Amino acid sequence: MESIFQNEIIKEILARYRRIWAIGHAQSVLGWDLEVNMPKEGIMERSVAQGELSVLSQELLLRPDFLELVEKAKDQELNEYERGVVRVLDRSIRIIKAFPPEFLREVSEVTAQATKAWEEAKAKDDFSKFEPWLDKIIDLAKRAADYLGYEEEPYDALLDLYEEGLRTRDIIRMFDKLEKELKPLLDRILEEGKVPREHPLEKEKYEREWMEKVNLWILKKFGFPLGVRARIDVSAHPFTTEFGIKDVRITTRYEGFDFRRTVLSTIHEFGHALYELQQDERFMFTPIAGGVSLGIHESQSRFWENIIGRSREFVELLYPVLKENLPFMDKYTPEDVYLYFNMVRPDFIRTEADVVTYNFHIILRFKLERIMLNEGVKAKDLPELWNEEMERLLGIRPKTYVEGILQDIHWAHGSIGYFPTYSIGTILAAQLYYHMKKDLDVETKIAEGDFEPIKTWLKEKIHRWGSIYPPKELLKKAIGEEMDAEYFIRWVRERYL
Amino acid sequence: MESIFQNEIIKEILARYRRIWAIGHAQSVLGWDLEVNMPKEGIMERSVAQGELSVLSQELLLRPDFLELVEKAKDQELNEYERGVVRVLDRSIRIIKAFPPEFLREVSEVTAQATKAWEEAKAKDDFSKFEPWLDKIIDLAKRAADYLGYEEEPYDALLDLYEEGLRTRDIIRMFDKLEKELKPLLDRILEEGKVPREHPLEKEKYEREWMEKVNLWILKKFGFPLGVRARIDVSAHPFTTEFGIKDVRITTRYEGFDFRRTVLSTIHEFGHALYELQQDERFMFTPIAGGVSLGIHESQSRFWENIIGRSREFVELLYPVLKENLPFMDKYTPEDVYLYFNMVRPDFIRTEADVVTYNFHIILRFKLERIMLNEGVKAKDLPELWNEEMERLLGIRPKTYVEGILQDIHWAHGSIGYFPTYSIGTILAAQLYYHMKKDLDVETKIAEGDFEPIKTWLKEKIHRWGSIYPPKELLKKAIGEEMDAEYFIRWVRERYL
Repeated sequence: MESIFQNEIIKEILARYRRIWAIGHAQSVLGWDLEVNMPKEGIMERSVAQGELSVLSQELLLRPDFLELVEKAKDQELNEYERGVVRVLDRSIRIIKAFPPEFLREVSEVTAQATKAWEEAKAKDDFSKFEPWLDKIIDLAKRAADYLGYEEEPYDALLDLYEEGLRTRDIIRMFDKLEKELKPLLDRILEEGKVPREHPLEKEKYEREWMEKVNLWILKKFGFPLGVRARIDVSAHPFTTEFGIKDVRITTRYEGFDFRRTVLSTIHEFGHALYELQQDERFMFTPIAGGVSLGIHESQSRFWENIIGRSREFVELLYPVLKENLPFMDKYTPEDVYLYFNMVRPDFIRTEADVVTYNFHIILRFKLERIMLNEGVKAKDLPELWNEEMERLLGIRPKTYVEGILQDIHWAHGSIGYFPTYSIGTILAAQLYYHMKKDLDVETKIAEGDFEPIKTWLKEKIHRWGSIYPPKELLKKAIGEEMDAEYFIRWVRERYL
Repeated sequence: MESIFQNEIIKEILARYRRIWAIGHAQSVLGWDLEVNMPKEGIMERSVAQGELSVLSQELLLRPDFLELVEKAKDQELNEYERGVVRVLDRSIRIIKAFPPEFLREVSEVTAQATKAWEEAKAKDDFSKFEPWLDKIIDLAKRAADYLGYEEEPYDALLDLYEEGLRTRDIIRMFDKLEKELKPLLDRILEEGKVPREHPLEKEKYEREWMEKVNLWILKKFGFPLGVRARIDVSAHPFTTEFGIKDVRITTRYEGFDFRRTVLSTIHEFGHALYELQQDERFMFTPIAGGVSLGIHESQSRFWENIIGRSREFVELLYPVLKENLPFMDKYTPEDVYLYFNMVRPDFIRTEADVVTYNFHIILRFKLERIMLNEGVKAKDLPELWNEEMERLLGIRPKTYVEGILQDIHWAHGSIGYFPTYSIGTILAAQLYYHMKKDLDVETKIAEGDFEPIKTWLKEKIHRWGSIYPPKELLKKAIGEEMDAEYFIRWVRERYL
C-alpha cells in the first residue's frame, strides 16, 4: 500500500504522533475494560492510570519541537490528507492550550464531585443536592467559553468543542424549523391513532440467550467482522469504541423485557462501528483515522437504527428469526413488530424517547443551556423552566425531578453543548437516506438482506474520509449541500402519516 | 492510612513514578486483552501500541532529572520501604542502561523472526528451520551477558535478570542434590508401582460448564474476590496478570478431557494471584508493589498447586463437588482422584510433567543453556545433547524434535536463564510448607476447607513485603534460611513412598 503522506515534515510529525496514538489506543482499551470487565474495586487504580496517561498525552502534544513541526507544516504545499493531519492536530493543540492547567484541574475536581452529587440527588429525587454543583458547572462553562473565544455568543465556543465548525445560529435555524413543522406532525400522528402509544410487546419477557442469538444473526447479516476485527459485549450503557481500524468493539444490554431495546441498541452501535471499520487503512496510526465529529458519528448510528432497523422491510427480514428464538412471537404478526418498533409516545425520559419526540427533548436542553450561558440564569430556576418547556413541547409535565431535570448525567460531567449532536445525527441520517435513494433502491436492498451496497455507499461518501475534512466540508463533498432538517420532516411524514 | 514514605526525595521520586506505573498498568491491560479478547486482526495495531509504550516507559525512567533523584536518594537515610524503592528502581535503570538501543532493536527483530521460525519448525518437526535462529539467539545471549557484566560466568548475568541475586553456583548446588537424591526416589516410585503411570480419568471427557462450576467452587472456597478485585477468564495458555493491587486476573483453559489440567491450572494461577492480592496497600502505585521475582512467584503458585491442590485432604474436600458436576465421577472413589492427581510418568513434554519428573526437565535445559553460553556449542549439536540427557535423566529418548528440543517457546523468545525459576518455585513451595507446618496444622485446615490461616501465613511471611527485599533476603526474613532442595526431596518421599 503506497503511503499517502509525501511531505517530509508531515512524515516526521506522524512518526512522533505514533506515541500519542499509542496512548490513545491504551486509553480506549482501559475505558472499554472499565465498562465491560473491571472488578469494582479496580476503579481507583484505573482512574489514576487514566489521569496520568491523559496528562502525558497532552504533554507530548504540546512538546515545543512537536508544536514547531506543526507550525512549519502549515507553510508547506500539502495534499488533502496532509492538510487534514495539520488541521486535526492544530485544533487539538488549540483546545488544549486554551485552558490553563489550574482550570482543567478545577474542572476535573468539580465534575467528579458534581457527578457524585447528581447520583445522590437522582437517587433521592432531591434537586437541592445537585443545585449548587450545577451553578458551579455553569460558571465553569462560561469561563471555558471565554478561554476558547467565540465570535457571536459563548455557546458557540462549547458547541464547537463537540461539533467542529457548528455555530449556535445553525442550531437555532434547525430547531426553529423542527419545532414549527414537527409539532403539528406529532399532533396529527397522535390524533390519528394509527401509530400505537403502547404495545403488548413492551411487556414480553425474554431470556438473554434468545436475544443474543437474534443480535448475532443481525450482526452477521450486516457483515460485522466478529472475532476478526470486531467484538460485541455487554455493558450497562451500550457504546462503541475503536482501538484502531482493525479492532472495533460494541456493547449492548439485555434487560429481559421489551426486546426492541436490545435490538435497536445493537443496530445503533453497529452503525457507529461501521464508520470506524470502513476507514481508509492508510490512515492507520494517524490523527485523521476515525470519525470526524460526534454529529456525523451519530448520523451513522441513527441511519442504521432508524432508517434500516425500524423499516418495514427490515422487520419483515427479521421476523422469522424472532419467531425462531422468541416463544411469545407466535402471538404477533410482522405488522405488530413493525408498529412496536415505530411507536410514538410523548414521555419524560429522553433516552427512551421515540424517533419523533426525541428531538423535542434536545430542543428543550438546548434552550436551557443557552440561557444558562447567555442570560445568567441560576440553577435554582432551571427545574421550573424545564417543566414549562416540556409542557409546551410535548404536553406533559414532570412530577418529579428524576422525570425532569435530573435525568441526564451530561451536565454533571460538565458537557454543556453536547446535546445538539444527538439531533444532528437524527436529522443527517434522514438526509443521507434520501441522497442514497437516488443511487440505490434502499428498501429493496434491505428486503433482500443485501447490505453491501448500503455499506459501500456510506463508505464512499463518509467513512473512507476519516477526519480529513471538517464536518461541514465533508457533507458538502458527500451530498453537495449543508445539513437540512427538511429531510427529516419529510421522512417522519412518509413513515408515520 | 499513614504513608510509609517520609523522605522528601523518595516522595518526589514516587510522584514522578506514577506515570511510569500508569504505562505499566496500561501495558498489563493491553497484554491481558490480547490473550483473552482481541479479535485476531487487532494484532498489528496492538503490537505497535505496546512497542511505543514500552519505549516511552524506558525514556521516562532514564530522564536525567529522574536518574539524578534516584542517585541522590542513595545518600539519604531511608526506612526499609524507601530503600526498597531505590533498590528496585536502581536495578531497572541499570538493566535498561546496560544495553545499547541498537542491541535492543536487534534482539526484538531476531526474536520476532526466531519465534516465527520456531513455529514453522515445530509445525513441521524440522529443526533445521530453527537452527540458524538458535545460533543467533545464543550469540545475542552471550552479548547480553557481556553488556550486563558478571563475576563468575556469563550465565550468572542472565540468571540474575530473571531472579535477582541468584547465581549459577546456587543452581548447580541445588540441581546436583536433586539429581543425586531424586533420581533413586523416582526409580523406587516407578518400581513399587503404587503410584499410577496411567489413569482412566485422563480420558474422561467433560463439558466446559461442568468444570466452570468446579473451578468457581474452588476459587470461592479459597476466597478469591471475584468481581470485587479479581476475574477469571479463558485463554490458550493460562496466566495471571495484575493491573494493581485491586484488580488481579487469572485465566484457565478447558480442553474437554483430563479435567485435572483445568483444576490444577486454576489453582496454580490462584497462587500467583494471591501474592498480588495480598500486597500491602500502601505500596500502591510504587515500584515495590508486586511479587519480587519469578522464582518466588512460582513458589506461590506451586504451593497452591502441589502442596494444597494435590493433597489427599483437598481431593477429599473437592470430591463431592466433582461428583455433583461430573457425571462420570460415579465410577471413581476419592482415592482414584487422589492417585490421578499424583501420577508419576516419565514423559517428553515439560508442561505436562508430573511433580517428581518436572525438575529433570529443568535440569536438562539448564545444562544445555550453560554449555551454550560457556562452551561455545552450536545449535546443530543441541538436539543430540538434549536426547542423550533425556535418556540419562528419565530413561526415555525423544523420537521427534517436537518431543525434544522444539517443545518450548522460551529460546525463540530469547529467554535463556529463565527455566531455573520454575524449579525454584517447586523447591521453595515444599520448603515453605514445612515451615508453615511448624505454625499450623496445614492438613487439618485443608480438610476443614479453612484456607484463611494458610493465606494469612503466606501474607505475613511473603506477600505483604512486595519487592522491598531481594529474594534471598526475603527468604531469610520469612523462614530464617536459604533455599534448600532437601525439603522438596523430603516432600516427595513422604507423599509418594
